[in-house]
Amino acid sequence: MNAPTAAAHLLPAIHLRDVPPALIDALQSRFGTQCSTAQAVREQHGRDEGSLQAPPPSAVVFAESTQDVADAVKLASQYDVPVIAYGAGSSLEGHLLAVQGGISIDVSRMNRVLSVNAEDLTVTVQPGITRKQLNDAIKDTGLFFPIDPGADASIGGMSATRASGTNAVRYGTMRENVLALQVVTASGEVIHTGTRAKKSSAGYDLTRLLVGSEGTLGIMTEITVRLYPLPEAVSAAICSFPSIEAAVHTVIQTIQLGVPIARVELIDHHTVRMVNAHSKLTLREEPMLLMEFHGSPAGVKEQAETVQDIASEFGGQAFEWASTPEERTRLWTARHNAYFAAVQSRPGCRAISTDTCVPISRLADCLLESVDEVEASGIPYFLVGHVGDGNFHFGYLIDPDNADERTRAEQLNHQLVARALSMGGTCTGEHGVGIHKMGFLLDETGAGAVNMMRAIKRALDPKNILNPGKIFAM
Amino acid sequence: MNAPTAAAHLLPAIHLRDVPPALIDALQSRFGTQCSTAQAVREQHGRDEGSLQAPPPSAVVFAESTQDVADAVKLASQYDVPVIAYGAGSSLEGHLLAVQGGISIDVSRMNRVLSVNAEDLTVTVQPGITRKQLNDAIKDTGLFFPIDPGADASIGGMSATRASGTNAVRYGTMRENVLALQVVTASGEVIHTGTRAKKSSAGYDLTRLLVGSEGTLGIMTEITVRLYPLPEAVSAAICSFPSIEAAVHTVIQTIQLGVPIARVELIDHHTVRMVNAHSKLTLREEPMLLMEFHGSPAGVKEQAETVQDIASEFGGQAFEWASTPEERTRLWTARHNAYFAAVQSRPGCRAISTDTCVPISRLADCLLESVDEVEASGIPYFLVGHVGDGNFHFGYLIDPDNADERTRAEQLNHQLVARALSMGGTCTGEHGVGIHKMGFLLDETGAGAVNMMRAIKRALDPKNILNPGKIFAM
Repeated sequence: MNAPTAAAHLLPAIHLRDVPPALIDALQSRFGTQCSTAQAVREQHGRDEGSLQAPPPSAVVFAESTQDVADAVKLASQYDVPVIAYGAGSSLEGHLLAVQGGISIDVSRMNRVLSVNAEDLTVTVQPGITRKQLNDAIKDTGLFFPIDPGADASIGGMSATRASGTNAVRYGTMRENVLALQVVTASGEVIHTGTRAKKSSAGYDLTRLLVGSEGTLGIMTEITVRLYPLPEAVSAAICSFPSIEAAVHTVIQTIQLGVPIARVELIDHHTVRMVNAHSKLTLREEPMLLMEFHGSPAGVKEQAETVQDIASEFGGQAFEWASTPEERTRLWTARHNAYFAAVQSRPGCRAISTDTCVPISRLADCLLESVDEVEASGIPYFLVGHVGDGNFHFGYLIDPDNADERTRAEQLNHQLVARALSMGGTCTGEHGVGIHKMGFLLDETGAGAVNMMRAIKRALDPKNILNPGKIFAM
Repeated sequence: MNAPTAAAHLLPAIHLRDVPPALIDALQSRFGTQCSTAQAVREQHGRDEGSLQAPPPSAVVFAESTQDVADAVKLASQYDVPVIAYGAGSSLEGHLLAVQGGISIDVSRMNRVLSVNAEDLTVTVQPGITRKQLNDAIKDTGLFFPIDPGADASIGGMSATRASGTNAVRYGTMRENVLALQVVTASGEVIHTGTRAKKSSAGYDLTRLLVGSEGTLGIMTEITVRLYPLPEAVSAAICSFPSIEAAVHTVIQTIQLGVPIARVELIDHHTVRMVNAHSKLTLREEPMLLMEFHGSPAGVKEQAETVQDIASEFGGQAFEWASTPEERTRLWTARHNAYFAAVQSRPGCRAISTDTCVPISRLADCLLESVDEVEASGIPYFLVGHVGDGNFHFGYLIDPDNADERTRAEQLNHQLVARALSMGGTCTGEHGVGIHKMGFLLDETGAGAVNMMRAIKRALDPKNILNPGKIFAM
């Protein structure tokens, strides 16, 4: 596969629009100390966890209420100036970069739980609350919010990127778990979408349109999400396999049998080695599945036995159980630290992370061909995956000062995405498009669908001020 | 509660647009015998199962391919003439009425299964296949498609109205189960949305925007939906309760405990009486829950025991089990025949069906207040509900020639919707808005959200030819 356009993905298209001093004056007059133009604050708000760069926004408004967001958007609209909502800053594909200039609206102070409806298994929150803060706030209800991207992201950011994580195989993604929204539109109007009813056929599904729209159609100011009863029993296990293929086939068969597994993560032998070094563990340095089962005690036992039988067929061994919370925490901490373990394995490196998702029948093919490719490249890497959903991430560990390595890593990503698309998959399972995957989105869905997205954007944001330059070029 | 505008919901706003003879000529030239202008054919395509009426469309095109649909839309667009997609004709809220004139595009001949991907638990079909045809076609795969509105609706119609049914409490609605679409747009272009990957963060969720858009944003020509492994064990049971309240509290507690019940239907004592008479059964004439459990044999047993314990607390008795397919069929046939049993109970009557859905904590309040209201009205009625989701239907059995009864029934519906909305619910759980609920949608979501829908409609269908006059007034 050739990837002649890989280099084009490296640099965002920057076309700075004018931010008149009169707007900054108006913001400072309206927001006082809630508005900052300090260089350090602006720079912090002009980047994300990805590797793309752009000049920072001209000012940052620290919104404390829906009215603050609406007023900031109205002022920006008056001057045709872009606004970019900022939650925890943990996005990965350049979502937060002010590629057309403008102002950042930081919603991290809007981090309250507005109402817990435990009987209905719903909670309404402000967008700046993080997933850990949310789970901490509801810990006495016997309920939990399952969606867990690697970072302690904000619920607003997770909604805006349609995020998921390790629990999605059982509990779905933000697509399935956001019920209702309060949103500030491009004109600064406050609207509501959805209700707390579990289902509805009432008109266009604006909630689902806004979830995943990356701040380009509106800024979420209240979010109602589903909660789940804490399972009566939880059991976690690891199992090593002779090959990635064997591990993946265990997963495929588990899913096809309808086993309601709660988590099933693949970690390749490189990653196990890095995790062992980082966390002082002695895990077998072989491809490994890390699994979790939720349910009644009998149900969990039955699920686990079924999966153990399947794993044995494929040569799985060294099943290790972790039924106490402490043991589980140890295992999942190792999984969550995989990224840091990998980055530490090559001092000074930066990880370029891929994020494809394929129909599960093609998962083994997609992974194995991609492993061959990256092994041949000589670039160090790690591989982790939410494989129950067919979603996985390679991390290419590159020297950030080595332009050749960066180009080769981008090329590997390009080839991986092309492969996933050719297998009926998607260019992004959970990170979003941002700037980095705009070309891939077009490859995936075709010009017709992207033109439909563009028409919607133009209709809802005629001045193109809501996080412009993301998802698709206008 | 007053309902001064109830009468306004009775009649659709009819503003017939010109259908030039040149368009009919062009359609007949392109489609030959696939295009009919026969009065009987037009009339059959100008109504649905609801009670609203309008003049029929000027012609019916029997599409046999995506190209047929695209060509018919292109011709209609050329003459600014409305097009209304027609599947099985089983919608309930006036969705199919040609209130602005135009032509009907019947897709019932497009009823093939295009590809079964059993390993991925997906299937791609044409829009005209009905849910029973689909399940019949895949019956050798060990998989099934769970969504089951009362009628044997087409998958296209079910997608267009975001339908659900008795299994939604466990398997979700069309919102959760449509993965990808091929769609003919207002200009006759063929676009694709989504992929077969289980999750994606790739741009705007056009699939979810189109699902539930009632043919107003595009005409679906291919639909990829999720399938599920047939459960290893299935068990069904009925249980009678001393009151609706007791039955509903059993459901609420079951859901709150996270029991993965597959179906839980409420049937009130009127309906039991009607079903007994219709199906020659001897069910206790008390409020009843009809339940089904899916899983492993041990899992099903455990779920059933849990629910039986909860039911006992609320005075549930006469638990009757049905573990054989024949017994289950008998029970579910009785449930599915409830509508016909009810209509037969008052010869010559017509049922006006409501369709609200509320957060489950408010279900008992909403049901009981509504029961009091309809009892006081003296209008015969039945009550069935997909109560695990908080969704239920009253059927008011009116004399269609009695304008007063019709007005009172509409008023009851109006009051019921107002009550559901005041409790955080929705005006339609699964039937859609059509013509009948346009005012309710505005009450539910507010002018801001409806204006956003309108802006999207205008952007994607600037000539307003796709099923115009539905969901909202333009």
